[in-house]
Amino acid sequence: MTRIAIPDDSLFGLANLPYGVFSTPGTAPRVGVRVADSVVDLTVVDDVFAAPALNPFMAQGRARWVEIRERILELVTGDIDEAAVHPVGAVTMHMPFEVADYVDFYASEHHASNLGRLFRPDSEPLTPNWKHLPVGYHGRAGTVVPSGTGIVRPSGQRKAPSDAAPTFGESRRLDIEAEVGFVVGTGSPLGSPVGADDFDERVFGVVLVNDWSARDIQAWEYVPLGPFLGKSFATSVSPWVVPLLALESARVATPPQDPEPLPYLREKNPWGLDLDLTVSWNGQVVSRPPYREMYWSPAQMLAHMTVNGAASRTGDLFASGTVSGPAKDQRGAFIELTWGGKEPVDVNGEPRTFLEDGDEVSISATAPGPSGARIGFGEVTGRVLPAR
Amino acid sequence: MTRIAIPDDSLFGLANLPYGVFSTPGTAPRVGVRVADSVVDLTVVDDVFAAPALNPFMAQGRARWVEIRERILELVTGDIDEAAVHPVGAVTMHMPFEVADYVDFYASEHHASNLGRLFRPDSEPLTPNWKHLPVGYHGRAGTVVPSGTGIVRPSGQRKAPSDAAPTFGESRRLDIEAEVGFVVGTGSPLGSPVGADDFDERVFGVVLVNDWSARDIQAWEYVPLGPFLGKSFATSVSPWVVPLLALESARVATPPQDPEPLPYLREKNPWGLDLDLTVSWNGQVVSRPPYREMYWSPAQMLAHMTVNGAASRTGDLFASGTVSGPAKDQRGAFIELTWGGKEPVDVNGEPRTFLEDGDEVSISATAPGPSGARIGFGEVTGRVLPAR
Repeated sequence: MTRIAIPDDSLFGLANLPYGVFSTPGTAPRVGVRVADSVVDLTVVDDVFAAPALNPFMAQGRARWVEIRERILELVTGDIDEAAVHPVGAVTMHMPFEVADYVDFYASEHHASNLGRLFRPDSEPLTPNWKHLPVGYHGRAGTVVPSGTGIVRPSGQRKAPSDAAPTFGESRRLDIEAEVGFVVGTGSPLGSPVGADDFDERVFGVVLVNDWSARDIQAWEYVPLGPFLGKSFATSVSPWVVPLLALESARVATPPQDPEPLPYLREKNPWGLDLDLTVSWNGQVVSRPPYREMYWSPAQMLAHMTVNGAASRTGDLFASGTVSGPAKDQRGAFIELTWGGKEPVDVNGEPRTFLEDGDEVSISATAPGPSGARIGFGEVTGRVLPAR
Repeated sequence: MTRIAIPDDSLFGLANLPYGVFSTPGTAPRVGVRVADSVVDLTVVDDVFAAPALNPFMAQGRARWVEIRERILELVTGDIDEAAVHPVGAVTMHMPFEVADYVDFYASEHHASNLGRLFRPDSEPLTPNWKHLPVGYHGRAGTVVPSGTGIVRPSGQRKAPSDAAPTFGESRRLDIEAEVGFVVGTGSPLGSPVGADDFDERVFGVVLVNDWSARDIQAWEYVPLGPFLGKSFATSVSPWVVPLLALESARVATPPQDPEPLPYLREKNPWGLDLDLTVSWNGQVVSRPPYREMYWSPAQMLAHMTVNGAASRTGDLFASGTVSGPAKDQRGAFIELTWGGKEPVDVNGEPRTFLEDGDEVSISATAPGPSGARIGFGEVTGRVLPAR
């Protein structure tokens, strides 16, 4: 038997306890919990964790999430079978859940305004609907990949305004979007909207998302039906799902909304999340997007997504859209940070605009926990591989 | 033992043999094949058909699809165990496959031009990209439902151009889109585009699709990221998947494409499908959309969808977008047929524009088979239920 040592300043202390799917040379993929620098095999708690995805556990609902969290807390603070404890550096992390539908929102006013100026310089930056509803669209669930997956530079049609016709080739404007994603635990049936105050019953946890974006492909294709191939080549998620139950101390008021949203988008106690994101480009921090600045709240996104009666399912992932704050060094996409490539940023002494082959981007985040503790989200990382 | 009688003019003769998932009071959902007015339980052929979805069989690949089709032909033309044969009227049909990702294209030039005129009257009807690539977007896989599922009228935000602000309420412009859907059998890995000549290896079969659309919700929400809640409340599919192997005689040349598409969209032998669709509104035929008029071919859609390296998966459904021909009575959506509601059509003696509660819409189709036979697709049907 052993005891797990948990430093007071660990981002993976007892207030966090995030879930992930890991394997070792001798252990098939299964669910584990991260505690300090260890991963604890949760099959010692319940057989539901023998699955190679969190979906069966998430589908059991909130009462079980609470119960299991208490049992995990007992387990990891007591004497524990050494065979169930692995150093985090000795395991391979996998996709933590099977993605049902993937929806991407556009909930940052700063990001939407910046992109509007860049993509539609002759129009108002925000479209007329933007302050009335959380604009969103469906992405490709089948290309959501775990952190660490290499990102092959996509090819496709691009046409600059000055070109007479589109050409085919590698994307020259490969970008990131630093986002926060919400994972649905218990779905809602067709015809039953999820109310803005019912979020906690439905949503299991939170991940970090890098919504890789090929801006040249996107700019040419996206009218009138929205982004498609400019996004669908890959979307990366962090390996640890931080339970919503761990984020009580991270709740903050949302920015004022004007005009007041329609009743189905009103929460009794509107809340956002005080997450501090960090974007690193080849190891150098280039941006610190603050999630607390997001205009539309997580509960508003879920209420909107289902208000037409659309069903939700265990494993649905809905992401916030790029997290950008008001300051330049708070922008969560390189197209904003470099103003369409016209204002390079310094990356290890080199002026850089869009991603080059071999570049690595990591997005990490922390949030306040109880009693001054910090909750870590780990990171979502990806390296750009040359086009095939 | 029994023999199945197959009239010469059956739409479900030996040239068709479509697959579906059925159940009876004594039989759990499983895969069957339709022959004339019978459904034959395919678990007598192979255990893979005991699954409540076609996915495991589809994943086995084209060589198996060919082999099993031959074995089914032998089975249903010989003496067959009575217990394996059910009258089609005595079974319940289910979703024939589990949908992985759902993509909706916009491949009819007539439809795209009509919608452009209606949604963007001050612009060119076709966006600049339309003749260079098959425009498409991701839809909601979790709300693809089998024929016969009641369609609850969705509610959401609507704003007419004359309104000062959006209001919330029932959609007043509920519409259909008559489409043809393609079901991926064998997926392709991340980073490996499917060539325009590799369609037959990947695509298992064809279904009819009704992409129910709330035009008032769609018109307000769709800029800049595309349709979302105006579509995601429900998409209906027909219960029978017609194998691509049954459609050799239905292949026709595609309309000329000008400009010539980029190389990745060129097929050695470009082919479309000579499907005759019929749209019935409360039992009255209101439109006969011809699939042969579609500008972008099925193989071009799949090649485009994966050219950026996006993976495809068993169960991916990609639909053509509304099938509309050049004539008014060939339009596959009511917004086109009634020109935005301004030119009502006669339905059983009443002038009608958009769908009313209780309305039922059925879309059916046939295609040429070998030796003068016709291949039937059955129908996709749905009745509008009042908003909740």
